[in-house]
This record gives sequence, C-alpha cells and structure tokens, in this order.
Amino acid sequence: MTGTARGRRPGAPDTRAAVLAAARASFAERGFRGTTIRAVASTAGVDPALVHHYFGTKDDLFLAAMELPVDPREVIAHVASGPVEEVAERFLTAFLGVWDDPAIQPALLTVARRVIEPGGDRLLSEGFLPVVVQPVGALLGLDRPEHRMTLVASQVIGLILMRYVLRVEPLASLPKEAVIATYAPTIQRYLTGELPDP
Amino acid sequence: MTGTARGRRPGAPDTRAAVLAAARASFAERGFRGTTIRAVASTAGVDPALVHHYFGTKDDLFLAAMELPVDPREVIAHVASGPVEEVAERFLTAFLGVWDDPAIQPALLTVARRVIEPGGDRLLSEGFLPVVVQPVGALLGLDRPEHRMTLVASQVIGLILMRYVLRVEPLASLPKEAVIATYAPTIQRYLTGELPDP
Repeated sequence: MTGTARGRRPGAPDTRAAVLAAARASFAERGFRGTTIRAVASTAGVDPALVHHYFGTKDDLFLAAMELPVDPREVIAHVASGPVEEVAERFLTAFLGVWDDPAIQPALLTVARRVIEPGGDRLLSEGFLPVVVQPVGALLGLDRPEHRMTLVASQVIGLILMRYVLRVEPLASLPKEAVIATYAPTIQRYLTGELPDP
Repeated sequence: MTGTARGRRPGAPDTRAAVLAAARASFAERGFRGTTIRAVASTAGVDPALVHHYFGTKDDLFLAAMELPVDPREVIAHVASGPVEEVAERFLTAFLGVWDDPAIQPALLTVARRVIEPGGDRLLSEGFLPVVVQPVGALLGLDRPEHRMTLVASQVIGLILMRYVLRVEPLASLPKEAVIATYAPTIQRYLTGELPDP
C-alpha cells in the first residue's frame, strides 16, 4: 500500500522498510518536532541524504511512515479551491469519498488505530495536526487559522471514531449525503463563522 | 476514589476490588450487553446476590467499575430540567464544570485512557453510549433520540480528546465560557435542530 498514491517506491525494499520503521518509532516517541531526518537515518543505518532523496521533506516522510493511502495535501488543495462559503461541504464530500471507499477504508483504519495506540497521541497532536490539518487554515486565508482548525479537528476526529472505528449506529449506516448535510453547518461555522473572543 | 460520589463503600475491600476487576475485564472483553452479574460474580468468586446487594443494577456496576468520580446520571437529570432550547448550554456548563475541575479531571482522564486502550472501544460503544449517553435523548423527549445523541457524542468525544487528553492549543487553554459559546450551537442543533432525512 505504501507509496502507491504517490507512485514512488524507491530504494531496496529492506532499506525502505527500515527507514519507515525508524521514522514511525521516532514520530511516536519523540513527536514530529522532535524527529530529525538525521536521527531516523542513523537508526535505519543509512545516509541522511538517502532519506531525503527517497522520501523528500520531513512532512513527506511523516505521511509515508503513516502509510496513508491518499496524500491529504492533494485533497486539501482541491478543497481549498472554490467559494469559501461552501468549503465545509467540499471538505466533507472529499473526506467521505475517501473514508467511505471500501478500497481505501482499511488502510485509513490502520492509521486511526495507530493514533489510538499508546504513544499515538503525539502522532496526532504533533504530526497530523501541524502537517495535515493546520496548513488548511492558512491555505483558506482564515482569521485565527490554528484556533479554527482545532475546532474542525475536534468534530472530524469524533466523526471518524463514531462512524468508522466504533461503527455506532445509526451514524455508521447513515448515507454519505446525510452525513455531509449533518456536519457541514458545524464545520462551516468553525471555519468561517463568528467565534467567541478567546 | 471508587464509590466516593455515591458515598457507599460496601464489603470487604478485597471482595469489592475483586468484583470491580472482574467487571472491568468483562465489560472490556464482552461489552456491556455480553456482561452478566452472574458471570462477574463467578469470576470474582462471590455470590451474585452479593454483587446486586453491594453495587445495584448492571448500570450501577458499570459506572462503579469505570471509577467515574461523578455519577453522570445525576448531572444528566439536572441538565434535562429547564427549557429545551438552552439544553446544550446547560449540558456544556455542567460538562466543563466537571472536566475543568482539577480535583476531578485526573480521574476522568483515567477513564478516558481506559476507553482508548485496546478493547476499550467496547466500553464506549457498548457501555458509555447505552448507559450514559443514549438515555439522555429519551429523557429530553427528543425525536430520533439515538441518532441525535450519537451526533452529540461525536462532538463531545472529539472535544475531550483535543482539550483534555491531547491538550491541543489554543483549545486546551480556552476559557470555559468561550468553549461553551463555541460548542453550544453545534450541540443544540444536534439535539433539537432540523436534521437531514436518513
């Protein structure tokens, strides 16, 4: 599954696997900020330049290590283009398109379970949030982007947990369109609505 | 901590601890529906009548086993009284009053971590949701109570995770009043607003 979305499968399989394993361990133990390409390379027994060459930036390495079946940055770029007053609907349509896809969902659930595991909380707070979630706020040109994206994350994480991980009914079986219509006003308000002063 | 909220600390400490440990293991492994007082008593090596006598119903045993520092049913009864159009604000005020209390928060975090642990998902989907969350919908006399309470849970779980477990800023440091004002419209719409047809 790894790398299929970006169509790049570089390096000897063993080297590649060693780098990704070292990266996963480091992100989980030391968080995103505490992880360096140099330390990951050292643990994997390869040259840092090789890690850069094969995986790109630390952001790229993080996404590769998480084995995401889609590159969230591509989805986000698509969502960010178009009228801002419909951005929540575009986001939810893209989000459910991926999560409801039976070919993609198992890999996403693996990522979700990795985040729920002990130590996985840092993958979320110091990995996904700064790498995947927070940049969206800036991309959309929102005021108080960090604050707003944190609110969005608080709803999206709960939706993932209830609909896909725990499969709680009736939310688990609700048609995609009903889920979008239910959550779009919430997400839209968090993104562009008036918020109480902090 | 156990039982302090209800002021009842029955039985020999060892017996009591054995029953609670057996109950916790059973709820985690077999879920709420799959757990019987009889089987818990058998594992703990005591008579089922003793478990009933000391802990009450299976709902009571579940809450005792979770070592909740407050009885959520008392909070819920309070929230349910008063105008329904302000129920979300009353709920969030009560919810944050408990979660933001430094004397209570550590015990709640222990419960939250127990739910995140492997196997803990059943404690949530087959324990907290039917015992604590779903009855609220009926108590409030809502239409489609299960559906609405599942939506509420999807937002509240994400709020707990982001503000208290992961402590993601700026949400973690946001004053209580701002959190209430931010989430009240969401929760109120999920409880009493118009929802798309399923």
